[in-house]
This record gives sequence, structure tokens and C-alpha cells, in this order.
Amino acid sequence: METDLIIIPLAVGFLTLGFVCLLYWLVTREDAGEERMREIAEYIRVGANAFLKREIKTMSFFIVALAVILYLAMGKWQITFGFLAGALLSILATLIGMNAATRANVRATNAARKSAADALVLAFRGGGVMGLSIVALNLIGISALCILFGVGPENPDAVGLLVGYGFGASLSALFAQVGGGIYTKAADIGADLVGKVEAGIPEDDPRNPAVIADQVGDNVGDCAGRGADLFESTADNLIATMIIGVCFIPVYGWKAVMFPLLIWAVGALCTIIGLFAVRPWKGLSPISSLNVGLFSTGLLSLAAFYIISVYFMGDIRFFYCLSLGLLTALIVSLVVQRYTGANGRPVREIAEASESGAAINIITGFSYGMESAAIPIITIAAVIAISYLTFGGGLLGIYGVAASALGVMEMAGIIMASDTFGPIVDNAGGIAEMSGLGGDIEEKLDALDSAGNITKAITKGYAMATAALTSVIMIFAYLSEASKHMGVTLVDVNQLAHRLNASNPFLIIGLLVGATIPFLFSAFTIRAVSRTAFHMIEEVRRQFREIPGLLEGKAKPDYARCVDISTKNAIKEMFPPTILGLVAPVIVGFTLGAWVLVTFLLAVNVVGALLATFMFNAGAAWDNAKKYIEAGHFGGKGTDAHAASVVADTVGDPFKDTAGPSLHILIKLENILSITLLPMFLAYHLL
Amino acid sequence: METDLIIIPLAVGFLTLGFVCLLYWLVTREDAGEERMREIAEYIRVGANAFLKREIKTMSFFIVALAVILYLAMGKWQITFGFLAGALLSILATLIGMNAATRANVRATNAARKSAADALVLAFRGGGVMGLSIVALNLIGISALCILFGVGPENPDAVGLLVGYGFGASLSALFAQVGGGIYTKAADIGADLVGKVEAGIPEDDPRNPAVIADQVGDNVGDCAGRGADLFESTADNLIATMIIGVCFIPVYGWKAVMFPLLIWAVGALCTIIGLFAVRPWKGLSPISSLNVGLFSTGLLSLAAFYIISVYFMGDIRFFYCLSLGLLTALIVSLVVQRYTGANGRPVREIAEASESGAAINIITGFSYGMESAAIPIITIAAVIAISYLTFGGGLLGIYGVAASALGVMEMAGIIMASDTFGPIVDNAGGIAEMSGLGGDIEEKLDALDSAGNITKAITKGYAMATAALTSVIMIFAYLSEASKHMGVTLVDVNQLAHRLNASNPFLIIGLLVGATIPFLFSAFTIRAVSRTAFHMIEEVRRQFREIPGLLEGKAKPDYARCVDISTKNAIKEMFPPTILGLVAPVIVGFTLGAWVLVTFLLAVNVVGALLATFMFNAGAAWDNAKKYIEAGHFGGKGTDAHAASVVADTVGDPFKDTAGPSLHILIKLENILSITLLPMFLAYHLL
Repeated sequence: METDLIIIPLAVGFLTLGFVCLLYWLVTREDAGEERMREIAEYIRVGANAFLKREIKTMSFFIVALAVILYLAMGKWQITFGFLAGALLSILATLIGMNAATRANVRATNAARKSAADALVLAFRGGGVMGLSIVALNLIGISALCILFGVGPENPDAVGLLVGYGFGASLSALFAQVGGGIYTKAADIGADLVGKVEAGIPEDDPRNPAVIADQVGDNVGDCAGRGADLFESTADNLIATMIIGVCFIPVYGWKAVMFPLLIWAVGALCTIIGLFAVRPWKGLSPISSLNVGLFSTGLLSLAAFYIISVYFMGDIRFFYCLSLGLLTALIVSLVVQRYTGANGRPVREIAEASESGAAINIITGFSYGMESAAIPIITIAAVIAISYLTFGGGLLGIYGVAASALGVMEMAGIIMASDTFGPIVDNAGGIAEMSGLGGDIEEKLDALDSAGNITKAITKGYAMATAALTSVIMIFAYLSEASKHMGVTLVDVNQLAHRLNASNPFLIIGLLVGATIPFLFSAFTIRAVSRTAFHMIEEVRRQFREIPGLLEGKAKPDYARCVDISTKNAIKEMFPPTILGLVAPVIVGFTLGAWVLVTFLLAVNVVGALLATFMFNAGAAWDNAKKYIEAGHFGGKGTDAHAASVVADTVGDPFKDTAGPSLHILIKLENILSITLLPMFLAYHLL
Repeated sequence: METDLIIIPLAVGFLTLGFVCLLYWLVTREDAGEERMREIAEYIRVGANAFLKREIKTMSFFIVALAVILYLAMGKWQITFGFLAGALLSILATLIGMNAATRANVRATNAARKSAADALVLAFRGGGVMGLSIVALNLIGISALCILFGVGPENPDAVGLLVGYGFGASLSALFAQVGGGIYTKAADIGADLVGKVEAGIPEDDPRNPAVIADQVGDNVGDCAGRGADLFESTADNLIATMIIGVCFIPVYGWKAVMFPLLIWAVGALCTIIGLFAVRPWKGLSPISSLNVGLFSTGLLSLAAFYIISVYFMGDIRFFYCLSLGLLTALIVSLVVQRYTGANGRPVREIAEASESGAAINIITGFSYGMESAAIPIITIAAVIAISYLTFGGGLLGIYGVAASALGVMEMAGIIMASDTFGPIVDNAGGIAEMSGLGGDIEEKLDALDSAGNITKAITKGYAMATAALTSVIMIFAYLSEASKHMGVTLVDVNQLAHRLNASNPFLIIGLLVGATIPFLFSAFTIRAVSRTAFHMIEEVRRQFREIPGLLEGKAKPDYARCVDISTKNAIKEMFPPTILGLVAPVIVGFTLGAWVLVTFLLAVNVVGALLATFMFNAGAAWDNAKKYIEAGHFGGKGTDAHAASVVADTVGDPFKDTAGPSLHILIKLENILSITLLPMFLAYHLL
């Protein structure tokens, strides 16, 4: 009977895929509005698809080359096959999700003519396609590979073969987020700095040559990038927990390995219900409507956690840890909101600092950003301690930590839906503005946009918590795999690992080298944005200068050229950070060996999580301080204080939408790549 | 005979103190120039002394309270006495050094009337007072305590009692650098943003109300702050190496413990010679003259290293490691110069980015700053590996690492002299400008100022390398002390430390919590600057608005009020970061215990060193990009590009002169505090 458990996640995966189709149909059957709206939406869709096509083409060479190298080096077809499957399913999920988003945007604009609530439901369902695709394809992919590789109670070690899948998903995600992140921010900065600041035309004005590139960026960066990120998190979290689970077969039987897949399967079902709970409820504000969905999923999950823990695993402690995970996601989101929301002191103080100029604003935001990174990380440290001790510490305690990480992750589907909701309504507002739709449509969409900003803050806290906790779990998975390859139990590997104690300087060397990687990686991604933005600024200035009648609205700008600049440069600039991520752990593994690599990974995880949180929150706080001034405080638009806040917001752009999210992917990539190549590092190393 | 070795450092200490007096006399006997010059210099001196007086008064309460707590908690008079001695000697060294600096500045202005070379020698000797005071008082203090505590071959463990001295020096340094750093940058930003940017008057113009506060800031921040920093580094480095040395008495005899004191003693002698080698040589550029001093000290040190290693220690490997240390300082300085010098691509690219506005400039500088942190840290990792392996690894290898750290540190005296040279000539230029001295005096002083900027870059790289390496050594000192308290050998403690292996989640918890400390600490110090600068900006704006005839030069500004704002706020704002630094390791030690505290310290060290380097270099690069534009590139002064570069420079101010240098002190403080309280953490802890 235990052997057949794998059928459950596989079946739920296909069921979820069915709901993906249903949602897709529910969205696309709606009317896309008038000619002008369709035309603009088409521009965006074509631009986004063109970028993704080029990105996928470029990635393909890499993926194929790496697949060949992996096969030659490791000699296992399963790793190579899994790698290809992970990479392709990740691409597929983001393609489906982004396609739905680029169709939902214009339909949301049109629905807003009827009512804000209709637009909200449509946009949320559009986002739901992405959310469910990620969960569905991961459940199907991993379950299918388990069956294919013959993973089962009689062959538990085959679980380790799944790492190839995780590596493939990570690699795809890194390309998608880095490339998309560079694209979106270069276009955004170009549109803002020249259009809004220099030429003084409003946001999303059709006279702005970079406006289409900016809208495309919302889709390829925020939407496709974040989608690939959460696809990776899901895959890595599942695989790492399953690998750790193998150690606990003596305690819980084969269920120890199937447990994470089951949690994800019920998570998918709860997410589907939550998605359909968001309806045009009467008298509810937009954010409350979205909360209905989030809370439905959350409460159902709690119930499911209890049932699985008590009746399936026979251990109530799983329920405690899983619930603790859910609570963590909530706490971290609240902290993020305090530091980045207009209600909190930080944003108001940053806005006030704008009166002394851009520099003081930036310094203040920088300072709050650094501060804001501390509490979430300390919260996560506390969660690790509590869940470890809940299971009585020792080896079993590690399984407790894994359970709390599962608890955080399980909501990924609905969180992703809320997150994709953001760029869809953002796009919808842009389309309304560019099509010159009058009436109160823009007002309605603006209300949705504010709701979208809150969900974005929640997602950011959430993404941070999942990345940090998953990366910790992956360290244990690494050690667990190491014990297997060395033919010892995990308790023995603990003894072996004492080589890695604090008085061995190589521990410190691993930490030092590892800690530099997130710094270098951020440097590369941020500089990529500034270089690409530099070209974009030049081009937008050129068009305003050289195209007669453009500013008066008599001539059309050359949108395609701006789209092309973002596309070309984003593809070019995504290489340095990606290659750094791929090469660094390989060099450390082959020179300093598999044990020092552990401290390298620890430093990458810790420093990466801190830097990412800092960048996320500083960027969001600057953004919201600008919006706070635009809402009329400290003199409002057109004042020096406003100009200062625009500069600070621009500084924050690559932080929050390029470097920050890419770091989340990097830390997972470093871990899964190291686990994949671990047998080689154990066999060959210099020192 | 071995017992008497302690007489050498003590004697050299007093000899060096004699040279301090000689240098002080050589500086102060010079003519201070006309009435107006003396008057301005007096303003600066009075302002600086008033601040230091208040700062010392505030610190005293803390120091006395902590001394009482230390005695009650630890019950050892030696720790308390050493603590008081360290704190007081640190204050004394910075008082002597700053007093010389505030007298050398106006005399350098006057000497510049004769020739630039005369001014250079005078300013360098003024800086030499600080450099030699630090070395002399540390040699005297530590040697005297050794005699007082009866440290000797028959009582080697008494070396551990010296930690109180290190803690005292660290605490003083933290107050001095944080307080001084807030003071100097708030005044600088106030003077620049309102005076230069808004009112459009030149740098150091006497009409600027904040101009005296700015000059005072150079002394209390750059000069006194950095002095206290290097005093601390010297003390901590000596004590940590001596503690480690105790483990190697079986190999080298008592010489193992005396070795670091002897290296410092010969270092003092080489520094004295190097100081007097800087003379008004004919035909040499200012920077070459300074280099004569640095290279004399360096080459003499190399010779001394060889003699001590071969004839005293009888082990040529010490020579290799010591020389490697010297080489490290050189490499790191070159990296810093590449990233922050006007000759390197980064600064030129940052300057070019200013053409797209302040935001792109800031992003570019941010990116290069992050990148620049990587190479020095990886260099230090390599130095640790090489010196560890030079001694064949194992326990003895750790002594090799300590030797290379000694090699880096040994030049502290002359480096400090070059560093203090900077604020002295900076002040000298300001005094010339404010006194309205005509002729080519300002030109001559500007040439010296450029030389000062290069030495500053070198010092920054140097300070970074010493802080990072010393903090690593202190981890080993911590483990060494732990072994003593537990009554086991260091080899055994390695076995015990395996509790601390990677599969114990508390290792990760220590890392997570430790990594947040430098982020929080930077957040507090940077925000302190932005808040104080905010008040300063308001005050300067008020004076321009309310004092009639001020801008026309008909009325005098209220300098004292600006000095007062900086003083009051700096004193107030230095508490949050200082208290964080004092409380964090105590909480971790008492809750998670002495072993998790090791990973906490490791994270503080690694993340602190990276952040500090990033902040130093980003700040310096923005500063030099501004100067590059001011030199006439990209349109020069008065263009939008220049205005953008001023904003970026202001953002960098608290990075490079407040948070960055304070982080260096923090990482040492955390280590020495933990070593001091280690017996208590071993006895009482929650988990």
C-alpha cells in the first residue's frame, strides 16, 4: 500500500492541471474590449513573447550543453533526464502563466467598465493560472520521475536522483529572473527618468517611447521571473525534504519520504478552493476580497495539516511545526509591511527626509532597509530552534525543521496568484491610460493597484521566508546525501563533520569565500540594470529630440526600438551573474572539498537572505515614500521633495526587482548544484 | 633569561614615547602664522576639545559602570584593572594625537607659504604623533600589565587576564569612532548640501555657518576616530596572538608568547626611522616623499622579520608568514586604489553615469562597491590558507595564520601617521581659504591634499585587512581560552567543538543571528547621520535666511550653534549602536551558550568585514567620481552631471566615514567581549 502512495500527488497534479485549463478558459472567454485596447495589449503580448522566445533560445544552448556535461561527468541518465525535465517544466509553467497574464490584463481593463469587483476576480484568476501551473507541474514532474526512477520503499536511495530535476528548475529560474529583472527595470527607469522627470508627461502616457517596454517588463520580470522563482522553490523544497525523509524511514516508514508530496497535494486542493473563494462579494474592499482567498486556503490547510499529522503520520508534532511555518509566513509579511507600508514610521520618515534632498532620503531608506532585514532573519532563526526542539532535538529535530519549512511553502500557489494579480492590474491600468478610456475606470483600477501593492509586500516577505528556510533544509539534504555516498548513517556523518569545526581555518575560508558570492552577484545584476538603463535613457531622449511632434502627440514613438534595447541587453547582461552562480560552487568543491563547501553554502545562504531582504524592503520603502508624497504630503507632486523621492525610487528599482529576487534563486541554485555534484567533490578535490 | 624578555617591549615603548614628545615639540615650535589664521585654528581646536570632553564624560559613566559589573560578575581585579587601563590609554593616545593634529594644521598652512615640502613634513610629523602614541602606549600598557599580573613561563595562563585591556580599548574605540563619525558627516553634509549646493558658495567658505563644525569633524572623526580604531586593533592583535602563543610553549618555549610583543617593538623602531625619512627631499612629489617613509619602514621591517624568525624563533616559516602579511596589506591597498582611484574604470564609469542623473550614478557606484568587497576578502581567505599550510596545517598552522596577521599589523604606526596627515592638510587648506590667504598657498596645499587622498585609500585597505585578519585570530584565541577554562588541550577542544558541526541547526542559528548584527549596527549609525544632518541642514538654512547680510559677507554666521548641534546629536545618537554591540553577544552567550557564540562571532566577522569594505569603497568611489567631474570631465562644475555626483557623494559620506570604520571596531569588540565573558558563558547558559 505504501508503494502506491505516489499515485496521490500524481493524480492531484493532473486534477490541478485541469483547473489551470478551467481558469485559463474563464479568463480568455471574457471580452477584450475595443480595437485600441486590443492593439495595445497585442503590443505588450508580442513584446513579452519575443523576449521570452529569445531568452529560451539562449537558455537552450546552456541547458543542452550542461545536460551533456552532467551525463559525461556523473554517468547517470536519471540526473540528466531529471535536469532536462526540471528546466523544461519550469519554462512551461512560466509560459502558461505569462500567457494567461498577458491576456488577462486587457480583459481586466474591460471588466473594470462594469465593476471593480469583476476586474478583481478576473485579474486574480489570471494570476491563479500561474499559481496553479507551478504546483501542478511540480507535482506531476516529481511524482512521475519517482515512478520512472523506481523510487520506493525497496529502493529509497533513488530519491537522491531527483536532484537533477531541482537543478534544472533552478537554472531556468535564474535565467528567467535575472534576464526578466534586468529587462523590466531598465525599461522602467528609462520610461520614468526621461518621460516623467525630464519631459514631464504622466505615467503610462502613450507619447513615452519606453512605455510599451515598461509594460512588457511587468510581465517578463515581475510575472514570469517570480513564477520561475516559486517553481524552483517548490521543486527544491520538495526534493530536499524527501531526501531528508529517507533518514527517517526507520521511524515513520516510507511515509517519511511521501509526507512532503502529500502536504503539497493537499496544499494544491486548498489553493483551488481559495482561488474560487475570491468572488465579486458585495460590500468587500478589494484587499478584503483577496484576503478571503488567502484565509480560506490558510484555514483549510491548517485542518489538513492536523489530519495528515495525526491520522497519517501519527505524530501531532508535525502539526505544530507545519502551523509554525504558516505563522512564520504571516509574521515576516507583517514585518515587511511595517517597514515598507505607508502606515509605518519608516516610510513617513523617508518621505520627510526628501525635504532635505535625495541624498538624505536615500541614506534614511538605506538605513531602514538594513534594519528591516534583521527581524525576519532572527524570526527564521527562532523558527528553526523551536521546530528543532519540538522534535526533541538530535537527528529527528532536523525533520521538524523540514516540516516547518513545508508549512511555509505550502501556500505557494495562492500567494503566487496574488502576486501575479499585481502586474495584471498594473498592466490593466496602463492599457486604460494608453487607450484614453475616460470615466472612472482608471480610478477603479487604481484601487485594485493599491490592493496589488499590499499583496506584493506579502509575497515579498513570503518569498524571503521560503528562500531562507528552504536553503537551510537543503544544507541538511546535502549532509544526508553525503552520508549516503560515504556509506555511513547520518549520525556517523555528524562525527565525520567534526573535521569542519571552528578551529579549522578552512571553515572560516569557506565562510569568507561564500559570503562574497551574494555581493558579487548583486554587483553584476545591479550594474546590468544601470548599463541597460543608460542605453534606454539615451534612446528615449533621442526619440523626444528627433521625432518631430512626438511630445505634442502628433507623431507616434518607436516603441519597438525600446523593446529591442531592453531585450538585447537583458539577454547579454544575464550571463555574468549566471555564470558566477554556476562556477563558484564547482571551484570550491573541487579545490577545498565537499566539507568546506558546506560552510561556503551556509555563508551564501545567510548573506544572500540578508542582502535580498534588505534590497526588497529598501526598494519598496523608497517606492512607497514617493507614493506617499504623491498622495499630497510634504507638498506633493512637482516639489523638490517629490523630485528627490523619484531619485530614491529609481535607486531602489534594481534592488527590489532585479538583485533581490535573483538572490533568492541564487541561494537555492548553489545548494542544489552542490548536492548534484557532491559525489564528484567527494571523489576528487585538491586539498 | 626568557622571563626578562618583557623588558624589551616595555623599554621600546618608553623610547617611542620619547619620540612622541620630540615630534610634538618639532611641530609646535613652528610659527602658527597671523592673527586671523590663529583665530580660526583656535575655533577648530576649541570645538574639537569641547566635543571630546563631552564624549569622554559620557563614556566615563559607561566605563565605570561596566568596570563595576565586570568585577562583580567575574571576581577578578586584573580583568577590571586591565579594562580601565585599556579604556584610559586609548583615550590618552587619541587626545595626544588629536591635540597634535589641531596644532599642526595651522602651522602646515603657514609652512606652505615657504614651500609645499615644508608643509608636508610638518603635517606628516603631526600625524606621526598619533601613530607613535598608539604603538608606544600599547607596548607600555600591555608589557606593564604582564609584569603586574605576573605573566611568565611559570604562569602562562595569566596571559588570558589581558583580555580586559583589549575590551577597554575596544569600548573606547567604539564610542570614539561612532560619535566622531556621526559628528563629522552630519557637519560635512550640512555644509555641503546647503552651502555648496543651495547657496552656491565654495567649499570652506567662511560665510558657511557649518564650516567650523566641518573642520572640527575632520579632527574628531577622521583623526581621533581612526586613532582609537588602530589603538584597538593593535591591542586586540597583540593580546589574541599572545593567548594563542600559550598553546605553542611546548614547541618554542616562552618565546612563543613574547614573539608578538617583540615584533611590535621592532615595528615601533622601524616606524620611527620611517617617520624621520620623510623630509623635504628635493625633486620628489608629495606622494613620493610619503612613500619614502612607508617603504623605509617596510623594508626595515622585512629585515627585522628575517632576523627575529631565524635567530630568535629559529623557524624561517615565521618570516614567510610575516612577509605574506606585509604583501597582503599591499595587495588589498592596490585593489582599493583600482576601485576608488580616478585612474580606474569604476570611478570613470560612475562619473559617466552621472550624465543620466543621480540615480544611475548611485546604482553604478553601489554595484562597484559590492564588487570591490569580494577581492580583498578572497585575498584574505587565501592568506589564511597559505599561512596555515606553510606551518603544515594542524594546530601549529594556526600560529602561522597569527604570524601573517602580525605581519599586516606591524606597520600600524606609520600607516596611522599617513592617515592623520590627511585631515591635517585638509584642515590646513580650509584655514588658508577661510583666512583669505592669497598666492599659491591653496594650490600647494591642494597638491598635498591629493597625496592625502591616496594615503587615505591605502589606509582604508590596510584597516580592512587588519580588522578582518585580527578578527579571525581572535576566534582562535577564543577557542584557546575555552580549552583552558575547560581544562583540556586545544586538540581536545577541537574534539569538543564537533558539537558545533554543520548538521546541528544551532550552528546555523548562530550564523543567522550573527549576520544580522552588522546590518542592524550599520542601520543605526547611518540613520544617526541622516537625523543629525537633517537638523544641521535646517539650522544652516535658517541662518542663511535669518541673518541679514550673511551671504554678502557683511555678517558673521553663528558657528558655535552648528558645532553644538553636531556635538549634542552625535553624543545622543552614539548610544543605540554601542549598546547593540555590547548586548548582542551577551544575550547569545547566555542563551545559546559558548559554542553557538563561535558561529555568531564568525558571522559578525565575515559579514562585518564585507559590509565595511563595500561601504568604504563605494563611498570613496562616489567621492572621487565627483572630483573627477570637478576636474573638468563631463562638463565639470555647475552641470547637471556635477549636481548628480554631489548627491551620490553625500550618500557615500556616512558609508565611508561613519558606518564603515565603526564596523571594523564592532567586529573586534564582539570578539574581545566574548573572550572576556567566556568563563561565564561556559558556566551559565540556557540551552
